[in-house]
Amino acid sequence: MRGVGVRLSREIAIIGAGMTRFHHKLHADKTSRELFVKAALEARGSVDNGFELPEVEALFVGNFSSDAFEGQIHMAALAADWLGICPRAATRVEDACASSGVAMNVASMAIASGAYDIVMVGGVEKMRGLRTEEVTDTLAMAADAVYEVGAGFTFPGLFAALASAHFAKHGSNWEQLAAISIKNHHNGALNPKAHFQSEIMETARKLGERNDMTFEDELEFLRSPLNPVIAHPLRLFDCCPVSDGAAVLILAAGDVARKFTDTPVYIRGIGQASDTLALHDRVDLTTMNAAKIAAAQAYEIAWVKAKDIDVADVHDCFTIAELLATEDLGFFPKGEGGLAAENGRTALDGDVTVNPDGGLKAKGHPIGATGAAMAYEIFKQLRGEAGRHQVDDVEYGLTHNMGGSGATVSVQVYGR
Amino acid sequence: MRGVGVRLSREIAIIGAGMTRFHHKLHADKTSRELFVKAALEARGSVDNGFELPEVEALFVGNFSSDAFEGQIHMAALAADWLGICPRAATRVEDACASSGVAMNVASMAIASGAYDIVMVGGVEKMRGLRTEEVTDTLAMAADAVYEVGAGFTFPGLFAALASAHFAKHGSNWEQLAAISIKNHHNGALNPKAHFQSEIMETARKLGERNDMTFEDELEFLRSPLNPVIAHPLRLFDCCPVSDGAAVLILAAGDVARKFTDTPVYIRGIGQASDTLALHDRVDLTTMNAAKIAAAQAYEIAWVKAKDIDVADVHDCFTIAELLATEDLGFFPKGEGGLAAENGRTALDGDVTVNPDGGLKAKGHPIGATGAAMAYEIFKQLRGEAGRHQVDDVEYGLTHNMGGSGATVSVQVYGR
Repeated sequence: MRGVGVRLSREIAIIGAGMTRFHHKLHADKTSRELFVKAALEARGSVDNGFELPEVEALFVGNFSSDAFEGQIHMAALAADWLGICPRAATRVEDACASSGVAMNVASMAIASGAYDIVMVGGVEKMRGLRTEEVTDTLAMAADAVYEVGAGFTFPGLFAALASAHFAKHGSNWEQLAAISIKNHHNGALNPKAHFQSEIMETARKLGERNDMTFEDELEFLRSPLNPVIAHPLRLFDCCPVSDGAAVLILAAGDVARKFTDTPVYIRGIGQASDTLALHDRVDLTTMNAAKIAAAQAYEIAWVKAKDIDVADVHDCFTIAELLATEDLGFFPKGEGGLAAENGRTALDGDVTVNPDGGLKAKGHPIGATGAAMAYEIFKQLRGEAGRHQVDDVEYGLTHNMGGSGATVSVQVYGR
Repeated sequence: MRGVGVRLSREIAIIGAGMTRFHHKLHADKTSRELFVKAALEARGSVDNGFELPEVEALFVGNFSSDAFEGQIHMAALAADWLGICPRAATRVEDACASSGVAMNVASMAIASGAYDIVMVGGVEKMRGLRTEEVTDTLAMAADAVYEVGAGFTFPGLFAALASAHFAKHGSNWEQLAAISIKNHHNGALNPKAHFQSEIMETARKLGERNDMTFEDELEFLRSPLNPVIAHPLRLFDCCPVSDGAAVLILAAGDVARKFTDTPVYIRGIGQASDTLALHDRVDLTTMNAAKIAAAQAYEIAWVKAKDIDVADVHDCFTIAELLATEDLGFFPKGEGGLAAENGRTALDGDVTVNPDGGLKAKGHPIGATGAAMAYEIFKQLRGEAGRHQVDDVEYGLTHNMGGSGATVSVQVYGR
């Protein structure tokens, strides 16, 4: 039986990438279609030897629910329409918060199938048309409507349960989550595309009326009532913000990629797995089985091991999610993810840099755009174009995009 | 450039198929997850040499908006969960009313890519939890929210515009649409899975207090106020009903299909194209460019021509849509589709049988399930298992699934 490793019959390369800034206010007057086009035009412009949109043979769009956010379904055809690339095939993929991570896999398989040589894949979400409480309810539709949402759960509560379970079983603690938050805000401050660009730590400094705050000072701020509990043990700064944005990649079959650029980034391996939607059906709340399996698939195809990964964008919708991911992806043994973060092993100069772009925590999380934005970051890292948050000596990168509380996980491994 | 024909590097076969009855009341106490499982279990049971669900390596689910209908997103992972096949990869595809037709293409490419040998693909929609007027508004989200819905359009109005344009340019008329409705209700009466099983014609007979009604009598009934105008020139019986239901196929790579059955049905060609969402951006309202292009792709790959097709399931959300499809798929010259229907050329014993299962008009149209239900019908037809609506001597079949008012079209060609 296959499905253990998703082998692909052709090489897949990224030849261009673009993304809007992720933000809560900046795109207030824009619709999803406009955000997607903005990111797509930047991707087009990023192709070294030039690229025209009609060269796109098929379009894949990750989107969570423009239905609920904008009253607009059929987003893939609409994106093709607004890009002026009709009659190219346009397909929307939705797997909750993993929508565009999964779309990356679908697009890769479309090329590998021989159907297309050049495809565009991206994601978009325009969330801030709704009020925050409406957004929370909309996002909760990715949990089990009958057994979780019907019982009062929304995602902060679900991830709080995961955090509590991990604390109890493995002795991790909230200070380790705070270390993840501080790291990601630090990285976001170096990323001009990020939603938060040091604003939160600046807030802490302002509130402390000092400019020389240490890590301990920041931690003290995060412990204070200025960082209120959302769902114990998670506080406000353990949760990603609600952002608008889009990200787009241009993929080409390996045999045509060099026509467009001398420095393509190859998708060396892909993986995808599912798990029960409802947490009560899981055997163990301290590990994401879908992440372990998707990662094992991607590593196997890419012929690499976890220790080979230099930089990873992982799905930190909540800080506990990053902690879990760094363990389930094999970067650290189970139970040691929090300690590793606290000890700086996931920092820009750490053993394996995690979320150099600020992650969902500081970069933002326009749901459907997140998987594609992760690929954007790793593309830049592997080409040495990540600017102030560039990691040194990157040979292999990884993206980990999660839907719901782990019912869908996609993983991609990248190399040059 | 590729994309003209979507060539696939492996043979794709259907080895099993199942569907629920489509109905407005029967599934009132069921959720989408339950409907999908019901269809999937029937598909499993239909595999000649036996099949167990863990043999499924990946799942693809077409669904339009369980968000709006049930407050549940993330339907693919949920279906995997309820089928008990986690951690298999599960991917939702949405392209409006073409969601599961496009999912068929995505699933085919997934096999052709070498990633998987055996996949499950299907679709589901549970619509009747909302009131009819709410359904109309929900469906309208597949049109252009800014330029069409914002101007007051819903789909009956959009398809009415297409009908008026066709009448004006090509001299077709409403009686030809009525002939399509009568044919599809006749076929639906022979299909135990159909939503309407001659109920409407029976209604006409009852209202006429006669049992010997002729075609002319039925036409007179359809002209009467008992068949009210919905959006001129379309009347109630020109519109498909609102139904709940699910349909599921099991696909296998050609080289493993014979392990499961001696009579697989092969997907010989696939095609997919897009068009502008808003009708005002189209050059010609009397042809669906996406249908022409998707069909040309599928024919080219399958090495067949339109005249080779013996039986077709086409997307008759409104009767005018079937008329347009029979022209755009090349069955009849442009402007002659209505006359062909009127002359019985698309009947069960016609030149090319169209919608032997009753079509969306009589079988029902649970949006996300429709493309998969079309494939279910053609699978049965090619195996000679369609029962009372079996067409004689079927060598090639075709499915045509449309999203919105033609902004997405998928086409598949099938053979033995």
